[in-house]
Amino acid sequence: MLYSQKDKKELESCLMQLEKEYAEVKKKGLKLDMSRGKPSTSQLSLSADILSVVNKDADCFSDNGTDCRNYGLLEGLPKARQLFADILGVKAENVLIGGASSLNLMYDEVARAMMFGVAGGEKPWSAQGKVKFLCPVPGYDRHFAICELMGIEMLNVPMTKDGPDMDMIEKLVSEDESIKGIWCVPKYANPDGTVYSDETVRRFAALRPKAKDFRIFWDNAYAVHDLYEEVKLANLFELSKEYGNENLPIMFTSTSKITYAGAGLAAMAASAANIEKTKKSMGIQTIGYDKINQLRHVRYFPDADAVKEHMKKHAEILRPKFKTVISAFEKELAPLGIAKWSNPKGGYFISLDVEKGCAKRVYQLAKEAGVTLTPAGAPYPYGVDKNDENLRIAPSFPPVSELKEAVDVLCLCVKIAAAEKYLGKL
Amino acid sequence: MLYSQKDKKELESCLMQLEKEYAEVKKKGLKLDMSRGKPSTSQLSLSADILSVVNKDADCFSDNGTDCRNYGLLEGLPKARQLFADILGVKAENVLIGGASSLNLMYDEVARAMMFGVAGGEKPWSAQGKVKFLCPVPGYDRHFAICELMGIEMLNVPMTKDGPDMDMIEKLVSEDESIKGIWCVPKYANPDGTVYSDETVRRFAALRPKAKDFRIFWDNAYAVHDLYEEVKLANLFELSKEYGNENLPIMFTSTSKITYAGAGLAAMAASAANIEKTKKSMGIQTIGYDKINQLRHVRYFPDADAVKEHMKKHAEILRPKFKTVISAFEKELAPLGIAKWSNPKGGYFISLDVEKGCAKRVYQLAKEAGVTLTPAGAPYPYGVDKNDENLRIAPSFPPVSELKEAVDVLCLCVKIAAAEKYLGKL
Repeated sequence: MLYSQKDKKELESCLMQLEKEYAEVKKKGLKLDMSRGKPSTSQLSLSADILSVVNKDADCFSDNGTDCRNYGLLEGLPKARQLFADILGVKAENVLIGGASSLNLMYDEVARAMMFGVAGGEKPWSAQGKVKFLCPVPGYDRHFAICELMGIEMLNVPMTKDGPDMDMIEKLVSEDESIKGIWCVPKYANPDGTVYSDETVRRFAALRPKAKDFRIFWDNAYAVHDLYEEVKLANLFELSKEYGNENLPIMFTSTSKITYAGAGLAAMAASAANIEKTKKSMGIQTIGYDKINQLRHVRYFPDADAVKEHMKKHAEILRPKFKTVISAFEKELAPLGIAKWSNPKGGYFISLDVEKGCAKRVYQLAKEAGVTLTPAGAPYPYGVDKNDENLRIAPSFPPVSELKEAVDVLCLCVKIAAAEKYLGKL
Repeated sequence: MLYSQKDKKELESCLMQLEKEYAEVKKKGLKLDMSRGKPSTSQLSLSADILSVVNKDADCFSDNGTDCRNYGLLEGLPKARQLFADILGVKAENVLIGGASSLNLMYDEVARAMMFGVAGGEKPWSAQGKVKFLCPVPGYDRHFAICELMGIEMLNVPMTKDGPDMDMIEKLVSEDESIKGIWCVPKYANPDGTVYSDETVRRFAALRPKAKDFRIFWDNAYAVHDLYEEVKLANLFELSKEYGNENLPIMFTSTSKITYAGAGLAAMAASAANIEKTKKSMGIQTIGYDKINQLRHVRYFPDADAVKEHMKKHAEILRPKFKTVISAFEKELAPLGIAKWSNPKGGYFISLDVEKGCAKRVYQLAKEAGVTLTPAGAPYPYGVDKNDENLRIAPSFPPVSELKEAVDVLCLCVKIAAAEKYLGKL
């Protein structure tokens, strides 16, 4: 029976029962974590063989004879650039390889734009007064943290089932010259798992920003992270050329959730002009990133197909986890009409919308029962979810048995908060 | 016989003979490189065993149980922090581990100071109008390139046999609030190999800069890179505490010339307040650097003594190279009185001062004869050596036989340029 159809007495008896259950759960002293998108131990073990593909001196030379132990090759090994080019649908010459973190590449790109401006830009962003970014919400908290640190004002853009609201984006960027960028996770968006539709990607490619130094930060973190069949994202890089917009997108990805979150490879891809501009300061920042780890990756993955085969093993481990969460929501929450959730076909997260005004309460209840969630509000700029309704669920790390226990606690907390709300106690 | 004592006719006949030799050398079509401080292939092979110390899943856990394959530990592995702490003479809590490049850490520290200010600073450097750095000269071109890129004005400070001219530094920093930093390579300075004297280090520790947000960028790149016995550098970090100046130094080092230039570990060390400030933005920039490479290093080097033992093997390879260059200078140049050079007891470089106004000519002559040198002027801010006399010699990379050939060509070029100068042809 829907909570909205229960009368006060029914709700009160309901809440009393839930509180009893909650007291029992608290006694268990659980310590469960669904807060961050970390690969599980068994996923990490899938890549064990990469540790031994560069094992001795003779292994340290790349195809073209480069001694990867020494200085050189700022852009990265040609084969590593090709591997990421194939994953992102660009040419090798459009790719730069970084260290282990794509977040670091994104931060550096924003910092460079702030300090030195972008290719073809007349001034550094920081010399143009207040600058702004568009932020599809809910989104990735670490993107928003970069803007907050740099003093870039963030404007929320709601997500739809096809990606961010393009009408709003087109209008805003065409009118406001201080809007310099937008954060996008175009495939299996963090946290709702949305894949941007072909139409959405085309509209991004065709944008007519008033700011000539506007950039699309296209964080394709989950480019090959399908749980079921392969889902194709439209190629923003190619499409943007059709509209004379090839300098608009700057694309990022990494192997953090392919090989190792703690020792992967990150890459960025962009137009020749963008790459040239980035290299000018990147070449001052470093002589080059770790080339032996690049070599490990290209030895372990001879091509993008090898990556895709490898990702099927990740999917096998992840699918039951996503199913565990979704099944619990369907069984425990659906009949009560007190929540909505995404059912992603890939990526690392499920987005859960509880009753308005209840997300913080659910977070707190779960925390006190030993279940750590991503803090309510985190998927919004400045940590402010004005509806206080969204929670990001990260099912990847715990084993299925723990996850089952955690999600049952979560459902219990969602019910308690909803009952409290209907009873006017929140 | 000294060139200065030769008459015009003697010099002319001398030059004619030298030009004949030079024409012969050019015919050989040499391709020799003494331009950058790269470890040689045999040095790189010293660390071959580090490639296999993390070889399988079970190897990926640190002493404290951290799974290095996964996210976490922004500051670096405790044992890696301890290793660098012992090398730099600080506590582990004062160390942050980076990626493969200490240059990258330096660039990032300067960028952070520009964008967000330093610990205890009231404003970002970039919000204070023109800011300046002191640059001991000759110095490291890549340090100067960071300042140039960021628009930081550079002021030259001459080097003495004890380090940079401290009278000048004390005066400048006490008078000019726009001076925010200084670049130092305190041990085996690049390029002259000077080790800062205890007195110099103490005077750095006791500085009274007018700018409250002044920092000493202490690039201890050659901390353990002794060619003969171990040379002790005074401990700036400890000394600075005596003067209430513990926030002044920010220290950097790396294993680029211990293990691999292309896949080493970099670290920075500073006061608790500085580390806290850095972590605040570093934690936005990345979730963490490559921890498996940290693990490789701490497995391969259980402690700083193991590093020092390892460095003796590097010294064995490097000593004959330094001797080859110095011997040639002593034999070919000393009797003519046309050059001076440093004779370093460690590090990677020899500084050669040719006759004033001749360095560019020597570089060009060498280049045309197939010997690549670091461009004349490179060791000076903006590439301007106003005396046009300094050349940086990097003897590490070529095998001794090639080096011998290269330095002979170099000496020939030095003689030609000097003769041309004395004859008024330059």
